[in-house]
Amino acid sequence: MVSFKEFQGLDLRVGKVLSVENIPNADKLYKLSVDMGEKKITLVAGLRPYYKPEEMKGKKIIVVTNLDHVTLKGVTSEGMLLAAQEGNKVSLLTVDKDVKPGSKIS
Amino acid sequence: MVSFKEFQGLDLRVGKVLSVENIPNADKLYKLSVDMGEKKITLVAGLRPYYKPEEMKGKKIIVVTNLDHVTLKGVTSEGMLLAAQEGNKVSLLTVDKDVKPGSKIS
Repeated sequence: MVSFKEFQGLDLRVGKVLSVENIPNADKLYKLSVDMGEKKITLVAGLRPYYKPEEMKGKKIIVVTNLDHVTLKGVTSEGMLLAAQEGNKVSLLTVDKDVKPGSKIS
Repeated sequence: MVSFKEFQGLDLRVGKVLSVENIPNADKLYKLSVDMGEKKITLVAGLRPYYKPEEMKGKKIIVVTNLDHVTLKGVTSEGMLLAAQEGNKVSLLTVDKDVKPGSKIS
């Protein structure tokens, strides 16, 4: 079990996907530019087998913003987007009402 | 900053809202019964100012399943649903494809 305090240590926010590019020499990876309200960040996500770029552009996604950054194929991911997995199906998390990028999740 | 390992300690899953009831003597609280795939759990959520019961019933939501349980107004919440807040607007997190209750989020 995890304490509420530990959970609160995670910074989860709504982001809006601005652009989606393939990363060369990486079959599964996209480089995303994401509007987080006060700033714009770059995310790397292994979603190429599951989403087309046009399905992601403009979408509201959920981002963990305070994870240690990781660099994949030379691109640094400044956070991690959240997605649900059921076997070979992957679904992005999103919001069911139109809230602004940067909105905090709790 | 939070490590990926700490993040992985959280168990986040898709749930499906089965029923929504008011909790007596609590203006803001709903008692939800939620299908988590292998089991059904009870959640307490302060969503009465923001959602009608019929807006929530059947909806896929996102639940932290391994938080310490809390008891509010005599009802024990066996997890916490996630929602985004922008001022006075609150939006549930959900999935953008139809994945099964119990599907793990990462």
